[in-house]
Amino acid sequence: MQAVRLIPLPRKGTRYERELAQMLWEKGWAVIRGPASGGGSKARIQPDIVAVKNRKILVFEVKKARSKPVYLDPGQVLGLIEWARRAGGDAWIAVRIAGDGWRFHMATQLSTTRRGGLKIADPRKGMKFRDLINQYEGSVERIDKYL
Amino acid sequence: MQAVRLIPLPRKGTRYERELAQMLWEKGWAVIRGPASGGGSKARIQPDIVAVKNRKILVFEVKKARSKPVYLDPGQVLGLIEWARRAGGDAWIAVRIAGDGWRFHMATQLSTTRRGGLKIADPRKGMKFRDLINQYEGSVERIDKYL
Repeated sequence: MQAVRLIPLPRKGTRYERELAQMLWEKGWAVIRGPASGGGSKARIQPDIVAVKNRKILVFEVKKARSKPVYLDPGQVLGLIEWARRAGGDAWIAVRIAGDGWRFHMATQLSTTRRGGLKIADPRKGMKFRDLINQYEGSVERIDKYL
Repeated sequence: MQAVRLIPLPRKGTRYERELAQMLWEKGWAVIRGPASGGGSKARIQPDIVAVKNRKILVFEVKKARSKPVYLDPGQVLGLIEWARRAGGDAWIAVRIAGDGWRFHMATQLSTTRRGGLKIADPRKGMKFRDLINQYEGSVERIDKYL
């Protein structure tokens, strides 16, 4: 299930999965993390995190990044998209950038590599956590906040 | 998180969780199993299985039963109900009866014990898998099937 990772993660990734799960829970989302091993099933895709609130469904693959770009396993990304399709939700790549928090990239809008792989060229250009949450909760940031 | 179980399950329960997850997946549901340990968080409840299809959300606690009744940990059941409330879905207790397949009981309609615990008096009286699925997919069984 997890053939390629930018940084080998025997299961160190769980630390960041827990961090994101907790952030979502505190915002009122119902959150479940997938089994560490992938759940013993190769036929079924299991996302790292699924979050649901009032029937809005977010599905995450969690990646850690120190440098850019972040490379992704196409099979895993397609699996994530298929999960979201069945569920009626959205698939996101959640990148935890060392020293710079979380950025979110839609799984359906990744760049391709010359070899036909998938990548996030600049993880920092993703959506911030607050904006992701606001987008689904319908609240609008006041523009003057940025002035 | 899992203080009381009818039959001690160090994690044998995962076998049945996988069985149910596979059944749901084959019916077109997006399925995720929770982490075996409970996910290292005591604040967040993590269901055994979450299944989503076209924004319909089912949340399961999986129990194995050899005899009746099945006793449930009230804290765990309340956690399941809270998860479903946040998500906008339904909470179910999925009971795998030895030699007799699956029966599903709504987590909000359990019986109470004299001591204020929760139980399923007769697991066999629950809904069958096919009926559970049909209920959410809107298909209606033909009555003459039972004649």
